[in-house]
Amino acid sequence: MATKKNSPKRKALAAKEVSKRLVDLAEQVLIQAEQGENPTVAIPVRSLSNVHFNEERSIIEMGDRTQKRILFNVNMAKKFMQTFLVAAACKDLVESGKTTSIRDLFYMTKHTLPKSGENTFNDQEESDPIIEDLEVAIQALREELHLFASNRGGLVGEITIVDAGDTIDARHMGTGGWAVPSIVEKDVIQFKKCSAEFILLVEKDAVWRRLNEDRFWKQHKAILVQSNGMPARGVRRLLRRMTDELNLPLYVLVDNDPWGLYIYSVVKQGSINLAFESIRMAIPSARFLGLSSFDRERYDLPDTVTITLDNKDETRAKQMMDYPWFQNRKWKRELKKMLDSKVKLELEALSAKGISFITEEYLPRKLHENDWIA
Amino acid sequence: MATKKNSPKRKALAAKEVSKRLVDLAEQVLIQAEQGENPTVAIPVRSLSNVHFNEERSIIEMGDRTQKRILFNVNMAKKFMQTFLVAAACKDLVESGKTTSIRDLFYMTKHTLPKSGENTFNDQEESDPIIEDLEVAIQALREELHLFASNRGGLVGEITIVDAGDTIDARHMGTGGWAVPSIVEKDVIQFKKCSAEFILLVEKDAVWRRLNEDRFWKQHKAILVQSNGMPARGVRRLLRRMTDELNLPLYVLVDNDPWGLYIYSVVKQGSINLAFESIRMAIPSARFLGLSSFDRERYDLPDTVTITLDNKDETRAKQMMDYPWFQNRKWKRELKKMLDSKVKLELEALSAKGISFITEEYLPRKLHENDWIA
Repeated sequence: MATKKNSPKRKALAAKEVSKRLVDLAEQVLIQAEQGENPTVAIPVRSLSNVHFNEERSIIEMGDRTQKRILFNVNMAKKFMQTFLVAAACKDLVESGKTTSIRDLFYMTKHTLPKSGENTFNDQEESDPIIEDLEVAIQALREELHLFASNRGGLVGEITIVDAGDTIDARHMGTGGWAVPSIVEKDVIQFKKCSAEFILLVEKDAVWRRLNEDRFWKQHKAILVQSNGMPARGVRRLLRRMTDELNLPLYVLVDNDPWGLYIYSVVKQGSINLAFESIRMAIPSARFLGLSSFDRERYDLPDTVTITLDNKDETRAKQMMDYPWFQNRKWKRELKKMLDSKVKLELEALSAKGISFITEEYLPRKLHENDWIA
Repeated sequence: MATKKNSPKRKALAAKEVSKRLVDLAEQVLIQAEQGENPTVAIPVRSLSNVHFNEERSIIEMGDRTQKRILFNVNMAKKFMQTFLVAAACKDLVESGKTTSIRDLFYMTKHTLPKSGENTFNDQEESDPIIEDLEVAIQALREELHLFASNRGGLVGEITIVDAGDTIDARHMGTGGWAVPSIVEKDVIQFKKCSAEFILLVEKDAVWRRLNEDRFWKQHKAILVQSNGMPARGVRRLLRRMTDELNLPLYVLVDNDPWGLYIYSVVKQGSINLAFESIRMAIPSARFLGLSSFDRERYDLPDTVTITLDNKDETRAKQMMDYPWFQNRKWKRELKKMLDSKVKLELEALSAKGISFITEEYLPRKLHENDWIA
């Protein structure tokens, strides 16, 4: 079941290198000031206009347009100051080996400027975009700046993981599983004894628990991951590392609705908003296992478990048909079938055929018949 | 640091007993039918009017008013049928030893009645209250009916837990921790080697991670639990079992705002909506450790990290002052101080004093000075 390697691959940055890039950013400004120039930083533009789909690599990428942030400019002086406040805080974090949340960073950098009485930041909506600016400016991911996002997702299955020096045998994690942390870079998380043949990502916690209770991962030699909705960055990065380093195929199991398909597409190609992360997060080789719009007929599911598409669903499905990364015959067929049948299906709908139908019939048949879309 | 036992204590029901109660419910209806009576079930009333605060036990309790659900009654026939559909599905779950989500149960019991063309359930909003009816009718918790709610919360610290036969040493769970499952009854989860002296429940995942990274639990011999907001039922039940069986005090650390205080009060006394669970979930001995409205001055926190109370906060705080379970001098002082100062504080605000201020100064001083409210 080996799969082709994800490409392109980019090495994780060592703390030393991140720290150096932060210092370089500051020194460049000092040099400009000493030379009597107006200090300026170039920040890559993070908007739809600077995003494109790289067909060859099959990921959503950020373009190379940048905007200037200038110190002596009434509109930019505050943001300029904020950029370096955040950079200084990140340098402290990286050098002390500590990590924190983006909310915490806001509080760490918020204070009142002595003479003006003005606050450095008024709310977190001001500091979050500055973090993203910094990520793209020095080309280091948030996690490499020692900042974490939310901690969501669980894992069980045929692998042993070392997490901060502790050995976690995911074959013996009971009903709860191992909580996937937000920062999963190599210096914290390492993979050991892996006897899995594939990874299954399930959007829903409840379905993951059904599969765990039935020991699906044991019978099928799998790593079973749940993301509780759109996967957090930690889960995406962990899956990417697993597919890269363990050379395992990744199957994605989501609801049959536009949101489920969108989750799959973000896992596969990245998102528009965070295109600069694709290079570390996207998994172009990810396979869509289900629920397919054709499963209702193929698995003889009763009509009572379908839900009628609402206007928002329809608009979203039509939008997705136009995305460059959905221009694949099988995908178009999938979306068209959903729109034609006018219904969506949740993963739980499979339970209408019996509580362990998903474990005993649906998934084994799907995998056996290679009934997935790449 | 031993604490007084929670009271009252109620033994968990064995699967056999749950199954028997479900069968009894059905047999009672059969007998009524055979005797030519109109089949009737008595369901305890689950509304504010049937809830009161038991001062002696210090928990919110359900009263003993019931309402009748009658088969041959145009308004009740459907609900009557639904009650037994859900009961039958739960009986199957309990007897097969499987568990599932309440969403799944909805799909398991949803079908179209052959002649009328009518659906047994149209949406989950119909099946969820029936589950609660069944819980109170046979006095078995949802978890004992093998139904689970959401899976939220993490744990690390000085304890070894057996989860479905797997031994989880919470001292070696890395950065992610053990994901607390939704069903934590004795047949699934057992406590082994506990070297902890207290439990600390932290509302926020990010703060929990700070404390875990700093190995707070190791230095202070604690079990560190995070609930990611209002604790899920699994977390509440686990904490209750730990305080009961391990005789450990529980400290609660939440934001200093009405929502944080509400979280504490639910952990301590139970909630109005789910008063029938208090007997298994509430922990009257729980101690409120912080953030206190007085911490701002006591720990010299800068004004920049405060957030002004909005109208909703003020209304909520005033409401809470009237609750029978907030009629304690220290609590009134706490709420009054919040209203007078007109500000709230998040746990992250402590980071303004340094990233590990919470670990190295705030918590040790709080615990050392016994600066908490019971």
